[in-house]
Amino acid sequence: MVGQEPGHRVSVGASGADVRRTGFSDRASLEKAVGWLDARAAVLPPEAIRSEDAAGRVLATPIDAATDLPPLDRAGEDGFALRSAETIGAGSYSPILLELQPAGSPLRAGAATPVAAGTPLPCGADAVLPFGMAHLDARTVEVVGAVAEGMGVERHGQQLRAGTALFGAGRALRPQDAALLATLGVGSIQVVRRPRVRLVLAGPKGPAGTAFQGDAHRPMLLPLIARDGGLVESIVLASERASTRRAVAAPGADVVLVTGRTGTGPDDEAPLAIADVGELAIHGIALRPGASAGLGAVATVSVLLLPGDPLACLCAYELLAGRLLRRLGGRDPELPHRVREAEVGRKIVSGIGFAEMCEVRLVDGRVEPVGRAEGGGLASAIRSDGFVLVPAALEGYAPGTRVVVHLYESAMVL
Amino acid sequence: MVGQEPGHRVSVGASGADVRRTGFSDRASLEKAVGWLDARAAVLPPEAIRSEDAAGRVLATPIDAATDLPPLDRAGEDGFALRSAETIGAGSYSPILLELQPAGSPLRAGAATPVAAGTPLPCGADAVLPFGMAHLDARTVEVVGAVAEGMGVERHGQQLRAGTALFGAGRALRPQDAALLATLGVGSIQVVRRPRVRLVLAGPKGPAGTAFQGDAHRPMLLPLIARDGGLVESIVLASERASTRRAVAAPGADVVLVTGRTGTGPDDEAPLAIADVGELAIHGIALRPGASAGLGAVATVSVLLLPGDPLACLCAYELLAGRLLRRLGGRDPELPHRVREAEVGRKIVSGIGFAEMCEVRLVDGRVEPVGRAEGGGLASAIRSDGFVLVPAALEGYAPGTRVVVHLYESAMVL
Repeated sequence: MVGQEPGHRVSVGASGADVRRTGFSDRASLEKAVGWLDARAAVLPPEAIRSEDAAGRVLATPIDAATDLPPLDRAGEDGFALRSAETIGAGSYSPILLELQPAGSPLRAGAATPVAAGTPLPCGADAVLPFGMAHLDARTVEVVGAVAEGMGVERHGQQLRAGTALFGAGRALRPQDAALLATLGVGSIQVVRRPRVRLVLAGPKGPAGTAFQGDAHRPMLLPLIARDGGLVESIVLASERASTRRAVAAPGADVVLVTGRTGTGPDDEAPLAIADVGELAIHGIALRPGASAGLGAVATVSVLLLPGDPLACLCAYELLAGRLLRRLGGRDPELPHRVREAEVGRKIVSGIGFAEMCEVRLVDGRVEPVGRAEGGGLASAIRSDGFVLVPAALEGYAPGTRVVVHLYESAMVL
Repeated sequence: MVGQEPGHRVSVGASGADVRRTGFSDRASLEKAVGWLDARAAVLPPEAIRSEDAAGRVLATPIDAATDLPPLDRAGEDGFALRSAETIGAGSYSPILLELQPAGSPLRAGAATPVAAGTPLPCGADAVLPFGMAHLDARTVEVVGAVAEGMGVERHGQQLRAGTALFGAGRALRPQDAALLATLGVGSIQVVRRPRVRLVLAGPKGPAGTAFQGDAHRPMLLPLIARDGGLVESIVLASERASTRRAVAAPGADVVLVTGRTGTGPDDEAPLAIADVGELAIHGIALRPGASAGLGAVATVSVLLLPGDPLACLCAYELLAGRLLRRLGGRDPELPHRVREAEVGRKIVSGIGFAEMCEVRLVDGRVEPVGRAEGGGLASAIRSDGFVLVPAALEGYAPGTRVVVHLYESAMVL
């Protein structure tokens, strides 16, 4: 029943059949789908980047300090570099006069020279007297307090010794990590390559005056892909089987996300297009919304079918595609949302047998479902604060149950 | 004591004096500094963008739905569109035969036509029978179950009625919000303009073989500015007073961040450069690290002095600059880090009189200080999981105290 076109593997549907006009006879569990993806999601190979671009990348190989930090003894604070022994006995009532010496030459006996924190200690100096402990005039420094040897000095290697382990492989590098690498003069680092994602918008054009479905998918998925460390390689419009097949089979991507035409309607040919050129491993997942999602592969490239309904597309992206991207990129595969644990205030209903992403809002600190009663779909979902995942084995959560809410937030911008 | 060069306002230092070679006689409290910034930080004016770029932006004017969603009655699921009255009495043992009619024309009496979820309901149909409740052959649909009128149909306006309020001003738009705007055919929206930030790297070049201080600031601050919604307008190297003055005074930015040369050392001329061309309102803040930070303005442009030491720079950015950017951009001004509340495991020591950003790590769920004992500075800070803010009035936190840890994370990438 696959139709007119040849496909070198015809394993359509979780049960292996073309589901168009018949419906899914069977669906894979979310756990099975995630397991299939995880088994394929080996961390991508490393690439070299300049250390100044480190923030947000995942380190592929460990970095040890190649030099000491600081590389030499330096002033730890602003003040007068001097010989500590020459300040013994100094006080407000017994000031000691030192000669003011300009910076840049070895310190003469009986002299002090102003230094800024972070600058090298002049040769001969062994302490830095804070400016507040001296009175300065044109040629002399009147010292009104004693300092011990080493005071105000940051010793060579005090922060870090050459050879010290700095970052392990897998470190998600922070802005301040990039600053340290620059300080140590590290020019280039090895990081996990970012997964290249092709977005194939296969959904139908709506009736006259309404939007193309892909117009909703694109602005939603691009920031999510970026959030998960993916790099969009190309965006392809492919509204029928042949163009979808070509878009999926073309080289250049690590992951292909096909949105739309995943269901059981007459024109839902995206699964067939995958089977034409590769393997459709799973079609139909016991997930709501998103039950027509599918997973497959063309050679080493993972292909995900994301349903055309925007909220179902979001759900399948969050629970399947995002996880794949995070794993490929060497990141924590778990959902990246902030979470809040709270008590259910109004019953959350979920169909047994389906893992469900239930839109919820927090009302006076308690969790309430949003959605079906308010018309459902994307328009209800924008009123939610986040979602609660209900496993397939449960029918929902009764009031009083403590649940974890994954909070929606604005995507980051760059 | 300001020196050789003319400055039309000479209010250097919190006490109004040039602090070079004398030290700060006085510092502004962090609260005072934040209050000064907040008073200047009016939300920027709106700009129009395409709705497909909405994710991550902050809405400037409310949006109401201009059309109903769906705009017409449509299939709510995949199945056969038909007249519900014609299915009355249908069951496995009493199937009813309907004629299979191709899509695209008004539904004939006694016929059914396959439809996909989201597509318009054919004229004449009043329900959608799921594919699983029928058997299909070449010309007929054998209906094995009855459906009521309206079943499987998503009514015109069910999700949303024209005129309904969708998003209020100030909404930080989510990826799915962009999808809804596209679905509704909204082309352009008014969002808060992103603050344009000039980064003036004024820090000194290190001794031979060590890095230029700005090389550490730039890769650290760029992702933080992006995180806070800022747009880097330009990056300027300015290592002495005249070039700093020019960089600060040039038009085009909403905020100027000057890094380095903020302290009391002989060459710390950044504060003087601000006073030369504008107002240096505060120099010296009771903040650790970051006590040499300063705040000023050139006409309507806020100018922040961030200390050259990278960790002090980070602290002053996080507590002052980031907040300013978030306010200008209409975002939540509070620190954007994820937080975790936990118990102090090892005493956190802080100097009284200074607000302190204490680097900490979580060890078995308890908070321990990182830092001075390990050499201090950036190299210690990379070993931390986050920071705890200790107010100026406290000397720290004793073991057992519950504190809020602001967690460091990898910056987002796009």
